[in-house]
Amino acid sequence: MSKYFSEKYNDLIPYVPGEQPKDMKYVKLNTNESPFPPSKKAQEYASDAAKLLALYPDPDCTILREKMAALYNLDKDEIVIVNGSDEILNFAFMAYCDDKTPAAFADITYGFYPVFAKINKVPYVEIPLNDNYEINVDDYIGINKTIFIANPNAPTGIALSLDNIEKIIASNPNNIVVIDEAYVDFGAQSAVNLIRKYDNLLVTQTFSKSRSMAGARLGMGFANKKLIQDINTIRYSTNPYNVNRMTMAAGIGTIEDNDYMVNNCKTIIQNREYTINKLNELGFVTLPSKTNFVFTKNEKFSGEYLYKKLKENGVLVRYFNKARLDKYLRITIGSKQDMDVLIEKLIKIMEESK
Amino acid sequence: MSKYFSEKYNDLIPYVPGEQPKDMKYVKLNTNESPFPPSKKAQEYASDAAKLLALYPDPDCTILREKMAALYNLDKDEIVIVNGSDEILNFAFMAYCDDKTPAAFADITYGFYPVFAKINKVPYVEIPLNDNYEINVDDYIGINKTIFIANPNAPTGIALSLDNIEKIIASNPNNIVVIDEAYVDFGAQSAVNLIRKYDNLLVTQTFSKSRSMAGARLGMGFANKKLIQDINTIRYSTNPYNVNRMTMAAGIGTIEDNDYMVNNCKTIIQNREYTINKLNELGFVTLPSKTNFVFTKNEKFSGEYLYKKLKENGVLVRYFNKARLDKYLRITIGSKQDMDVLIEKLIKIMEESK
Repeated sequence: MSKYFSEKYNDLIPYVPGEQPKDMKYVKLNTNESPFPPSKKAQEYASDAAKLLALYPDPDCTILREKMAALYNLDKDEIVIVNGSDEILNFAFMAYCDDKTPAAFADITYGFYPVFAKINKVPYVEIPLNDNYEINVDDYIGINKTIFIANPNAPTGIALSLDNIEKIIASNPNNIVVIDEAYVDFGAQSAVNLIRKYDNLLVTQTFSKSRSMAGARLGMGFANKKLIQDINTIRYSTNPYNVNRMTMAAGIGTIEDNDYMVNNCKTIIQNREYTINKLNELGFVTLPSKTNFVFTKNEKFSGEYLYKKLKENGVLVRYFNKARLDKYLRITIGSKQDMDVLIEKLIKIMEESK
Repeated sequence: MSKYFSEKYNDLIPYVPGEQPKDMKYVKLNTNESPFPPSKKAQEYASDAAKLLALYPDPDCTILREKMAALYNLDKDEIVIVNGSDEILNFAFMAYCDDKTPAAFADITYGFYPVFAKINKVPYVEIPLNDNYEINVDDYIGINKTIFIANPNAPTGIALSLDNIEKIIASNPNNIVVIDEAYVDFGAQSAVNLIRKYDNLLVTQTFSKSRSMAGARLGMGFANKKLIQDINTIRYSTNPYNVNRMTMAAGIGTIEDNDYMVNNCKTIIQNREYTINKLNELGFVTLPSKTNFVFTKNEKFSGEYLYKKLKENGVLVRYFNKARLDKYLRITIGSKQDMDVLIEKLIKIMEESK
């Protein structure tokens, strides 16, 4: 840090993304990427867009919003497009939290929330998950704070029912509730259809996971038009041309090819159940997942030990050195072949440590 | 604006990008885009990257920084890559301005600076240009503020010499000086080579103009390693995966094909001088430009009148409804053919209004 850096960020600790080691080729199950390539249409449209890079992109992402509006049965003015969903989460902390309106989120959830709170100088409370690593809905009823809920939650993979999500939204009419649905396509219920019923609801989603576009950086927000205007006020005051032409084009291709995503998600769900069964056979205990990852532990080993041994064996998973999480591994669900390598390596590691 | 929007932004007026009307095909000379397509290598690399979108991009943009370090004769840790240079300008307002350290910039300059100041709740002073629309260097000597200078300046097109830039940097050792070189490749002197001499210098550049990549969103910052770490602290606390794979790949192609950019800039400079001569013949007075645009006026007409008439005639230029600027048009330098259409339409408009 230089001597010029503003004192206001003295307590800021940046987010640490999953590692991307370049020393060897790994079976990469650490950042919840898709094992499937992006839709052919997405690739084709992106290549076409690369010819037109001399011109600025449409800052309103009009065509992509129209396509999405048709798919989700919404008005395009109920949608905003962003440079990955991290961007809109940060915008929501900017727009809807301040000294008078603290943020609230689970103590175990997406690790970026406290960083967003700190960079925006926003007070926040962390609400503990219960002993089963679930969100206790009663803890969020009428709390007069701007609420951020990852649904399904990460790194646990556990989803709240839509009824419970609605209870939280309905009980906090004077505060925004942000439902972060990065993983919703893998079996949870989306709150998108509630945006006309509740003017305090902002739903965020991403093209990174189910649509195989982590490398393109494309996220979106759904809300009533006034909230979308708020987000656009922030966007037009920081980086209006936030989404480039190629990503926008790839997004259009992906939406036009929606069945491809739906089928890929079905496969991931099958691979997830297959993996959970295999892990159970090895004595693992896995939280019930509605995502493209599982959060799993084996009482005989620490998370750190298994993480390190798997890495030595060419399999990258994620491990969190934090209370209540350090027994666990977060393992992305990849192709069946990837999962078979994981299981094979786990068997080998467990044999060797006997 | 919704009732939930934080009061802290009550005085925020978002930036307004140049219009992108879709009603007909225009000769588009309003947003300082390049008339040349991006480098073939950029297009090719971007298309290849589109196949790999399932995986997150390298948040450190390592390969692109290495290529740029070689081209600019720097260390890669003296470079940071961003989602368009607006992003790093905002980061600089975040990192280097606060209640104790106001921002300072010209009253006539890039219109985004006051917006960045306002969204970051940073006090700022606007320092008037002199009667010739030039920055008066003495106004910036030892002022104890974080200084933002667009060099060349926009919308005037006028550049400061490197000697003058250095005077400003050297006289403000306790404050960051940001030199925004969006247009530097069209004939001005870059301050990049001063980053090892002055630890308070941050230089920003963009691939949008000279490298024909406005649609890709790629910008960069040059500074000593500590300042680059500051910027990365902000970046990793807001949106670490800010640059997508395709844009990064296109950037690498563009850097490998640097001569293409250099030659395109030569052509733009020729077209600029050609245009200025033609405008002079029509009675226009044009400020001395070191950019890919000219700022020009004709005493017989208001800027607004000519802007509107040109638009009716299929030529888009930019007009600023602001004191000292409202006589002028800002006209992007496109292909020679584009400039001939502009001149032809101006002649027609002037004839018709006799």
